[in-house]
Amino acid sequence: MKLILLSGGSGKRLWPMSNDSRSKQFLKVLPAPDGGRVSMLQRVWRQLGAVGLRSNTFICASKAQWEVISSQLGDVPFIQEPSRRDTFPAIALATLYLRDVVGCPDDEVVAVVPVDHYVEDAYFAHIAQLESTLHASGADLVLLGVQPTEPTSKFGYMRIESKGEADWLKVASFVEKPPQKQAEQLIAEGALWNCGVFCFRLSFLRSVLANKGYPTTYKALHEQFDALPKRSFDYEVVEQTRSIAARAYEGTWKDLGTWESLSQEMASTFAGNGDAVDCTNTHVVNELDIPVVVMGVHNAMVVTTPDGILVADKQSTSRLKDVIGHYDGRPMYEERRWGWYRVLDVQKLEDGTEVLTKSVELHAGQHLSYQKHVKRSETWTILEGNGELALDNRIITVVPGDVIRIYPEQWHALRAATRLRFIEVQRGLELVDEDVVRRFLAWEDIVSYCRSGLSL
Amino acid sequence: MKLILLSGGSGKRLWPMSNDSRSKQFLKVLPAPDGGRVSMLQRVWRQLGAVGLRSNTFICASKAQWEVISSQLGDVPFIQEPSRRDTFPAIALATLYLRDVVGCPDDEVVAVVPVDHYVEDAYFAHIAQLESTLHASGADLVLLGVQPTEPTSKFGYMRIESKGEADWLKVASFVEKPPQKQAEQLIAEGALWNCGVFCFRLSFLRSVLANKGYPTTYKALHEQFDALPKRSFDYEVVEQTRSIAARAYEGTWKDLGTWESLSQEMASTFAGNGDAVDCTNTHVVNELDIPVVVMGVHNAMVVTTPDGILVADKQSTSRLKDVIGHYDGRPMYEERRWGWYRVLDVQKLEDGTEVLTKSVELHAGQHLSYQKHVKRSETWTILEGNGELALDNRIITVVPGDVIRIYPEQWHALRAATRLRFIEVQRGLELVDEDVVRRFLAWEDIVSYCRSGLSL
Repeated sequence: MKLILLSGGSGKRLWPMSNDSRSKQFLKVLPAPDGGRVSMLQRVWRQLGAVGLRSNTFICASKAQWEVISSQLGDVPFIQEPSRRDTFPAIALATLYLRDVVGCPDDEVVAVVPVDHYVEDAYFAHIAQLESTLHASGADLVLLGVQPTEPTSKFGYMRIESKGEADWLKVASFVEKPPQKQAEQLIAEGALWNCGVFCFRLSFLRSVLANKGYPTTYKALHEQFDALPKRSFDYEVVEQTRSIAARAYEGTWKDLGTWESLSQEMASTFAGNGDAVDCTNTHVVNELDIPVVVMGVHNAMVVTTPDGILVADKQSTSRLKDVIGHYDGRPMYEERRWGWYRVLDVQKLEDGTEVLTKSVELHAGQHLSYQKHVKRSETWTILEGNGELALDNRIITVVPGDVIRIYPEQWHALRAATRLRFIEVQRGLELVDEDVVRRFLAWEDIVSYCRSGLSL
Repeated sequence: MKLILLSGGSGKRLWPMSNDSRSKQFLKVLPAPDGGRVSMLQRVWRQLGAVGLRSNTFICASKAQWEVISSQLGDVPFIQEPSRRDTFPAIALATLYLRDVVGCPDDEVVAVVPVDHYVEDAYFAHIAQLESTLHASGADLVLLGVQPTEPTSKFGYMRIESKGEADWLKVASFVEKPPQKQAEQLIAEGALWNCGVFCFRLSFLRSVLANKGYPTTYKALHEQFDALPKRSFDYEVVEQTRSIAARAYEGTWKDLGTWESLSQEMASTFAGNGDAVDCTNTHVVNELDIPVVVMGVHNAMVVTTPDGILVADKQSTSRLKDVIGHYDGRPMYEERRWGWYRVLDVQKLEDGTEVLTKSVELHAGQHLSYQKHVKRSETWTILEGNGELALDNRIITVVPGDVIRIYPEQWHALRAATRLRFIEVQRGLELVDEDVVRRFLAWEDIVSYCRSGLSL
């Protein structure tokens, strides 16, 4: 069985910590077994390892997320969505990737698991059994059903037709987000929550695609991806399939999509520099260097990041998405494949010039992409570490104290031999589209280009 | 009559906005007549102007405060306290300064007014009448008494012996911070609050100093200043004087020394970038570029500055001083004579090197002091404006886009022709004592030094 870990979400409901490149699942606020703090992604990755599924897992996500996934998990098998188009196109693309790129046979069993759910290890024990349930039940689809804990109208419910053999159930039908009265009735009848876990044979999904007139090869689907409908896998596949079995999971299953719910699972009530006194049920996450002092405030969430500062009654946080619409600017902190950067200062000068001051760290062995800017100059002051600079047709050794100027139209890249820190002052116009970036060149190739003196 | 405006205070109770160089009286949060925001200092300066007293006013403060006073009021007569030693030494020094430096005669009348009180214009109408009351009453001292509004035990009370002629009273005795019961009794008897306003003849204070064996010349007192007792003028002079008159002021008189009291007079409930929704009686002052969103929080004070972030129930803020003891680090924002700077980032590297990144603005026509650093190098990236750089024995024109490196032991200064902005990266050890700074050199003298090639 191959496992597709689906990483979606924009996570505006967790502003200011989440932004376009840092969704809910990447926030390191959960307790780790070693006492540290991990993200939901890292927690799920550990849980997959514990049931022996990790080596058959592929992560399906956008290009923007790939940088942070690499940073948190290292080098993992990755399927890149060309754009954001809901779960049906993403699952179809990932399934065809398994067939056409990885070389899986048509009878390969595929399980799809969302990355952004907070669950107990028992959940993944069920995931490991999905393949045998698919065989035993003879169904086209096997889902994971969650035992409801309240008659909420926030989730979808699956009605159970009958108990099957041993440890699986036959699914009768689906009810999407019912009113509370109906939810109570559904629970009384034994219905389960649908948690977005799907298991099927590769051939099953290919025939669904063929019947609907969608491409059935990875290459073709990838090319037409942007034209696919933005629809969920539930709507486009599950609800139109007759033979469905389910396994029932009875443990904790949480979305952690609001500060109120996320704070209940946090590793500590105060993370970062500062102190809280005379507070009850107040959680503080301070990602700034500036100390935070909270006094006599109850049931509140205080979150500070370079993107924003939130002070909110916890119950209010479900409405956050509506309030922070216009603070959705440039992300001020980003984890990248090569390290991270933090924006220290943004100035818009009277003549239109924009100035960005950043603190940057390159991990040892990593390098910035080979690039040039059309209308922007940069000053780098190297603080710590050693490395090499490719600038025009020279390779220059870089040590602490060096100050490097990069003029518009100069090709440049920087490689860290040891962990490298520098302060970068960008001055110019933000015309990103006109900049030229060779994102995936290896350092050796950059050195060759650079030494050849050829313009790219 | 000469007026001494006494500027004291450290203002930890208004953390994180106040710090050692930015006391309560310098915070620009009060409404100005033109709709803008002014500090308590600027408000008092305007009120002094309205009653015609400004041209005879001298501001007595520490050297650290001089920079911000100059920045807020421009070039004003200034008496510098060599160190912080309470009101008796400060008033004695300022009075002898008036005699020995300014050349006032012994029968000159001196009025002392604290700068950090929030009062109505009528208060200053009383100040303007202190001299005539001194003459009319024949008293050695004239005080301003404030009509109490509550039987608080936070203030000192003056008992009134009898009504004098017309508009002044005879003071019988003083009671410092009485219990509430006694305060009620005092108010019933017509006692007034003592608000720290004193008026006397120069000769009176000189004879007090002589009788107590203190120096009676400015030069001698200045030299022995650090050995003077840290005592208040009330304790050392007022309570030992028999013939005291008072004028009674019945308007608003507030200390504004806590966020709770200061917020009541603030120009707006939200200052800075961000928004507050579903909040009642909550005040937000955001001095960072980062947006602040406050939701569903009541009776709270939210203050963000480069020094710290405070989220507090307003009533809790009176205990702030005890809580923030250990966050009393380097001020991250400072107004200076020449402009301002803001610390964007502080890094302490593994080898002990400290890195400070600052955003700096020089006002047009101002210049940084001529200086060199023993163990620190700097990189300046000029963002906006034009000026001149003195570096070793050269004078260099500076324009936007220039990157300037300053090595240890290099003499340097920078003058702004127009408003000049730059990003400064300091790298090295913070050995301020070993640095050499020529603080009060005029630009012409710096240019001469620089061109002469002489080492200073």
